Order: sequence, then structure tokens, then C-alpha cells
Amino acid sequence: MNDPENVARKYRRLVSMLREHHALSSCQALLSWDQETCMPPAAIAGRSRQRAALAGVSHQRIIDPEFGDLLAELGEADLDPAGAANVRAAARDRDRAVKVPTDLVTALAEAVSLGQQAWVRAREKADWSGFAPALSELVTLRRREAEAIGYPDEPYDALLDEFEPGMRTADIEPLFASLRRVLVPLVTAIRANPPRDDDDLLRGDFDVAAQERLARRLLTGIGFDLDRGRLDVSAHPFTTGIDPDDVRLTSHYDPRDLGKVLYSTLHEGGHGLYEQGFDPAHTGTPMAEAVSLGIHESQSRLWENMVGRSVGFMNHLLPLLTGAFPDRFAGVDARRLFRAVNVVRPGAVRIDADEVTYNLHIILRTELERSLFRGEIAVDDLPGLWNEKMTGYLGIVPRDDAEGVLQDIHWSCGMFGYFPTYSLGNLYAAQFHARAALDIGDLPERVAAGDFAPLLDWLRKRIHVRGRLLTAGELCREATGEELSIDPFANHLQGKYGELYDLSLPDRRQE
Amino acid sequence: MNDPENVARKYRRLVSMLREHHALSSCQALLSWDQETCMPPAAIAGRSRQRAALAGVSHQRIIDPEFGDLLAELGEADLDPAGAANVRAAARDRDRAVKVPTDLVTALAEAVSLGQQAWVRAREKADWSGFAPALSELVTLRRREAEAIGYPDEPYDALLDEFEPGMRTADIEPLFASLRRVLVPLVTAIRANPPRDDDDLLRGDFDVAAQERLARRLLTGIGFDLDRGRLDVSAHPFTTGIDPDDVRLTSHYDPRDLGKVLYSTLHEGGHGLYEQGFDPAHTGTPMAEAVSLGIHESQSRLWENMVGRSVGFMNHLLPLLTGAFPDRFAGVDARRLFRAVNVVRPGAVRIDADEVTYNLHIILRTELERSLFRGEIAVDDLPGLWNEKMTGYLGIVPRDDAEGVLQDIHWSCGMFGYFPTYSLGNLYAAQFHARAALDIGDLPERVAAGDFAPLLDWLRKRIHVRGRLLTAGELCREATGEELSIDPFANHLQGKYGELYDLSLPDRRQE
Repeated sequence: MNDPENVARKYRRLVSMLREHHALSSCQALLSWDQETCMPPAAIAGRSRQRAALAGVSHQRIIDPEFGDLLAELGEADLDPAGAANVRAAARDRDRAVKVPTDLVTALAEAVSLGQQAWVRAREKADWSGFAPALSELVTLRRREAEAIGYPDEPYDALLDEFEPGMRTADIEPLFASLRRVLVPLVTAIRANPPRDDDDLLRGDFDVAAQERLARRLLTGIGFDLDRGRLDVSAHPFTTGIDPDDVRLTSHYDPRDLGKVLYSTLHEGGHGLYEQGFDPAHTGTPMAEAVSLGIHESQSRLWENMVGRSVGFMNHLLPLLTGAFPDRFAGVDARRLFRAVNVVRPGAVRIDADEVTYNLHIILRTELERSLFRGEIAVDDLPGLWNEKMTGYLGIVPRDDAEGVLQDIHWSCGMFGYFPTYSLGNLYAAQFHARAALDIGDLPERVAAGDFAPLLDWLRKRIHVRGRLLTAGELCREATGEELSIDPFANHLQGKYGELYDLSLPDRRQE
Repeated sequence: MNDPENVARKYRRLVSMLREHHALSSCQALLSWDQETCMPPAAIAGRSRQRAALAGVSHQRIIDPEFGDLLAELGEADLDPAGAANVRAAARDRDRAVKVPTDLVTALAEAVSLGQQAWVRAREKADWSGFAPALSELVTLRRREAEAIGYPDEPYDALLDEFEPGMRTADIEPLFASLRRVLVPLVTAIRANPPRDDDDLLRGDFDVAAQERLARRLLTGIGFDLDRGRLDVSAHPFTTGIDPDDVRLTSHYDPRDLGKVLYSTLHEGGHGLYEQGFDPAHTGTPMAEAVSLGIHESQSRLWENMVGRSVGFMNHLLPLLTGAFPDRFAGVDARRLFRAVNVVRPGAVRIDADEVTYNLHIILRTELERSLFRGEIAVDDLPGLWNEKMTGYLGIVPRDDAEGVLQDIHWSCGMFGYFPTYSLGNLYAAQFHARAALDIGDLPERVAAGDFAPLLDWLRKRIHVRGRLLTAGELCREATGEELSIDPFANHLQGKYGELYDLSLPDRRQE
């Protein structure tokens, strides 16, 4: 394998296999997108057969011994950094796939199917006992999976690694603990102030067609290319990257709440910019894939919160709103709009949470997942601990388990280790944004002028085109010069909300 | 293979392979549908990779020796008629696929790609010489393909058989010749009458959203299930059967010509009813597939022309039109509408042709294709012969080759033997409709009352649920008691248009 011609030939063969895998994955992505947006209701059985057939084909490709041999040989070879990253990332994905025995894959698929059914019924009736046995089974099977895959310190590492490769429980534990120590007093301080209803500006009766035109303007404004993507409607907004030239976003138009379309569009737009920003030279290989869910979420949160809820952005947003809904927004000043989009109101439901309280919902879930997989708590301890933590962190008591421990679908799909990536995304977003602001110098003024090119250019070069060249942690270090830390995010929140809510906060650094 | 348990086991294995093939084909159908309706313009390169990857997977499945062995063994076994039909149809498809050498498949794919590019440019410039070399290559390669596949009498049989299994050149030659002998004098007689502009009723300015609502009413009216399908917009209307529960039609709304939406919707609706009408017990096997393109086209033409352009249908249609466009249709009587939807106006362009002249466009193309594959004429003879036949059959001289020999895309894709299925569809449609009218008794009254259930029921039982149980010819004999003949279609045209245009026609039977 030291003959360069032989290496080059084998690497070309590997790339051609990777591209075929990617094309098949793109077909699966299209099936999923279509199912949420276009598919006739009665077509679900056929769609399941199509997805199963494609999954079978993809699995055959992944376990193909030729693929494994190529990866092993090229893993020893002298490749350029992009080539080495492709080999490393593909080998990692393959190792995870081949280590899990087929009977466990089948058992997990069945348990997920049963888990989702049980969850839907249990949530309807707010009846934990209807879901607990299915959840226990999912925890048992995912623990078996973690054992099969292996882990550095504890089983939860193997689950986290699926979504955030290279990140360990030991890495997130101190981050989340210190984040909690910042957020709980901040929320307490905000709660102590009289309630503010500044967001009534965004409530009323908003024509859905006008909302849709507004969403398109927001997207093209931040640089999303609608010739290389789409915007559609679905029950819950999402982004599907079928291909870097085929990135599909959805939105949901609530006629009575304009805030939803504004911030879900910026959120999905941020995901979409990442998917459109991979290096075209690497299309179809890991070098043109997202490095982790945390980094993916950082791109959505950066546009949604760091940019979209900033003072400067109000100068860009207000004329768009006035154009779309003149009766409501003519005469409104930017400061008023800034207050409206930054209302903090602790609540029981994660997906409705604001920028300040959101991460406490995640920290709560992560703490429970980790204890569960360490065997420190049992499935039946979850409802009680959930409510206890909700009260302690947010001062909220859920009405019932439907509004509490049963609110999210993730656990019913066996997805453990996924929730933390949401908060990692918020931390990365703040750190990237702070560094970009340093590098760009006049970023707030550019944003106020609706000139997002310098920021997008920064993200393209530092994050998007890097694909899976580095781990998320390395990427963060390279892009910002620092390890991931909670400081930029904590500074951002304390600065913005201290001023907005006129709080006197203790100096965090002295704690 | 005489042990019934062994046969049953092997047949179950075959069905599971067929269903997996079908699921993969369904994915390809979705990719095609999406490309025409949803795909962002820049995504075409990625889409080509996806299609190539899926085509590769499907081809591997088809040439899989296990599949061939199963088909060979079960071909000798004692199966029920549906099982035997599945084995026969799958073996036929596989035989065609494995007989064509890989290098020829590759050469054809390249020639089609070049052919389409050359055709687009040649048509733009009305320059035959820019297309002729690419067409010659396609004819050469398709002749090689016919030799590889084999044929009963002449190479063109092998091409025709792709689209109309079991039909031979020798079967269509006399049918088309006698059809021509009926149509040419009918067109001449109609041309001798003063021109009629009855269709000005359907020209004007018609709101596109109202047209779309009308299209949905037409579809659900004839029995198309929109919970098991969709209606979308595309440049040219088409039907994609992804699965019997996922049948997607498209329409094209011309704001100035209401006739287009009415008859393209009924046409695609007819295709759609066929695709929704297969026996669910056989989903994913040939028993739940169309028997031939001619039979598929018979279903579209039956609803479009036999039903949709009948006197009785006007009583159903007029209230729908008056509801959608009251200013235009209030006070119009059914007879006036009947004349408007049955204008005959010979023209140069096939896709704009009416019910009377349409088949002369097809006969012309079929005669040229057959002579080409018999080696009686050369590619460079086509433009001259085209214009000669257009003059002789329709009294039309195309303005240039763009409006003449270059008008259709089919030849540039190497599709020879496809055109005849359009006219076969018209003949089958008339024969099925005549028989259904005999069996139902009061069919015109039912249609006038908007009660299409008896007709749809007849088609479901006689045509749709039969799938690929029989050949198209056998199906026709079984459903109508007669061999396919031109008589029902000729009687239909001579009766309707003789009366509408007040013609004195010679008694065809005395010729």
C-alpha cells in the first residue's frame, strides 16, 4: 500500500463506493421529506416497504467486505488531509454499523415501533405506566448496543457518540453543570420581575400567504439559495439535505403568532445554509457531511438567536414586517420589536422555550438520561425526578406527565444521547458568533444593514467547507482559538437579558 | 419441484424478491415524479447520481442468479393462475434484461443522452442534419438490441414487445392500414365543411385556482381517490403510479384555454384509476402492474374521449363549469358544450390533435419506424416522407422540420415501438366502452347523471384487477368477447362526427 499509484487507485474506488452510498442515502432522505410534505395519507404502508428496501440495500453496501478492506488498507496509507478524513469518518460509521449484531438491530427496530405506539397512547392519557415497560425495553436494548459498540468510560458515551462523534459524557458533564449554575439564578432573577407581554406585538391575525412571502425574503436575505433548495409547509418545521444542491426546508404558519414563522424560518435557514455550504469537490463523501448534530444545531441557533434576536437585526427585520403587515408594524420602533422577540417566560414545554430557559430543559433531560444509563435511577423514577428538576430549575410544575416527562418523542424512538446536542449547539453558536464578531469588526452594523455576507463567508470558511475534516471539538478550537466553553453563551445571555430585564446579576466569574 | 410444500416455499421467496424489486422501482418512480414537480433546478446532477445508483441496484437484483433459478423452477411448477402469471411476467422481464449485453446498455444510455441534446438543439434551429447522425446511431444500437433479444418475424417486433408484450408488427400492420382507410376520407370530408370555431366557448381568461378546484372535482367525480393519490402541476401532464395507494397525477393550467385542463385531467384520471385499481392482494408483483402501454392508454382515452366527450357527459360537466365560471357558462346549453369539446381541426402537431386526426399522426410515425427497422428507408429519408404523409393523410404541410419530423422527443430517447401503443389505446378504449355499454344497458344515462360507478366497476373487474394475468390481446378477448378490431372506434367516430359535421359518409363495410 505504499505504491502511490496503488493508493490513488484504491482511494478512487473508495470514493466511488462512498458516492454510491451517499446517492442511496439521498433517496432515503427524499422518501422522508416526501412523507412529511407530499405523500397521500393512505400511502404509508407502501412507503414503509420502500424505506425498508432502501435500508436493506444501504446496509449491504456498508457491510460489503470490499468496503471494509479498502478502509483498512487506506487507513494505513499516506493520504492528503481530506482523503484521510474521508477514510477515518467512513471507517467510524462502518465500525458502528458492523459491531451491532443483526438480531439486536431487528429487536431495536421492533422496540422503537412499539415504543412510539405506546408513547402516543400514554401521552394522550397522561399515563406514564402505559409507556414505562416499552421505555425499559428500549433502555435495555440501547445499553446492549452500547456494549456491542464499546465506549471509553461509560455506556452513555457510545450513545452520545452516535450524534456527537468524539464527545464523551465526561466532557459535557462539567459544561452542563456550570451552565446550570448560570441559568438557574438568571431565570430566578427574570421571574422576580413583573411579567412582560411585549410579544403581544407578534400576536394577532396574520395572513398565511403574506407569512410565506416573508419567510422566503428572510431566507434569501441571509443567503439561502432557493435554486438549490425549497421551502414547504409541514406540521413541524425541519430541514432535509438531500444533496448540497437540493436542501429542503419547511415552515409552519400560525395565523395568530408571527414569532413562529420568523424564528423557525431563521432556524431552518441556518441548518440549510450549512447543508448548502459543503465543498462541492467532496460531494457524496464524508468531507461534504455535517460533523455532528451539535455543530448542525449551532448553525441554526446562530442565525435564529445570535443574529435573528440581536438589536441590529431589528433594523433589517422591521421593514420586512412593515412591508408584509403594514397595519401592524407601521410606526413600531426597533426597540419595541427587540423586546417583543426576546420575551422570557419559563414554561413546561421544551419546544416552546425561549433562548434563556431552553437549555434548562435540555440539562434536565441529559441528567436523567445519564443517571439512567449509569443505573443510578430506574425508568419508574423518571416522572418524579422530572417534576422535581422542573421545579428546581424553572420554577414550573407540569400539569401532568403529558406536559412533563411524556412531552418529547425522542425516548420513544430509543434516542438517548440526542438531547445534549441541542445545548451543545447553543454553546457552539455563541462561541462562533463571538469569534466572528471579533474577526469581522463591524458585524452588528453589517447585520443592521442586512448585509449578512461577511458572517456567512466566515461560517462557510471556518465551519461549512470543513465537513468532517476535524472532530467538532477540533473544529471549534481551530475556528475560535478556544476549547468549547460556556462563557460566550453566558456572557451573551447575561449581557442581553440583564439589560432588557434591568437585572442586577452577580458577577459570574467571582462565584 | 413437485412437492407442493417446496413449491409454496419457493413461490413465497419469489414474491418477497418481487416485492423488494417493486419497492426499489417505486423509489425510482418517486425520484422521477419529484424531478418534474418539486426538485430545485440546480439539483439535477445529484438526481442523476441517485437515479443511476438505484438503477444499478435494481439491475443487480434482476440478474441475481437466485432470482433466475427460482423463475426457472417455478416455471415448471403447478401454480394457480395468478402465481403462474407472476412467474411468466417476471421471467419475461428478466429475459429481456439479461439478454442485452452490458456494453450495449452503456452505449444506449450514452446515445440517448447525446440524442436528446442533439434533438433539443436541432429542433430549436429546425435543422434535421443536426439530429440525423445521433438518430442513426440510436437506430443501429436499437437494432442490435432487437437482435440480442430475438423476435418472431422482424426486428421491430422486439421493440414493440417492450411496450406491448406479445403484440407483433404483423398484428398492427393490418389494423393501422384499415384505420387509415377510414380516417383519411373522414378527415377529408370534415375539411370540406366550412371551419367551425365552436371551441371559442373554452377560450378566454380562466382563473387558475378555479381550474384547479374544477380538476379535483372532475377527478373525484369519476372515482379517483385523492387520499390514495395527488394532483399537482407540471409542464406536461403525466401520471406516476408509485404504489396503488400513491398515484400522482399532474395537470397544466392554461389561463386562456379551458379545454386543456378538462381533457388532460380526465386523461390522467383514467391512467390514475387503472393504477389505483390493481388487486391489493398482489401489490408489489406483476399481477398488480399494467399489462401494456396500449391498455394503459385505453383507460385514459376511455375517460377522456369515450366518456368525457360524449353527449351525456355534458349534463355532468355543465353544472361544474357553471359553478367554476358562472359568467362564461350560465345559459350555455349542453349541445353547445358538446360541439365545443368536439371540434376537429387538422394540424401539424400530434399532442394538439383531436380525437379524429390523432391516430393519423400515430399511423404516420408507425409506418416510418417500421420501414426504418426493415431497412426499406434510411434516416435521411424521414423528413421528406414525413411531409409527404402529412399532406396525404391530413392535408397539412408542416412549416418546417421543427413542426414536422422533429416535433416529438421519443426518437431522441431511442424509443421506437412506443408510438403505436397510443393508437392501440384508442382502439381498445372504443372496444371496451362499446362492450361496457352493452353490459350496463343505461350507460349514457348513468354518465349524464354523473353516476360513473357502474362503468368504473366494469373496468375494475374486467381490466384493472386482472393486472398481468393475461396478454393485452387475451384480456381484450375475455373482456369484450372479440379480437381487437377497428370497428368500435370507426363506428364511434363516424357516428359522432358524421352527425356533428353533417357528413354523408360512404358505408365503410361496403368498401
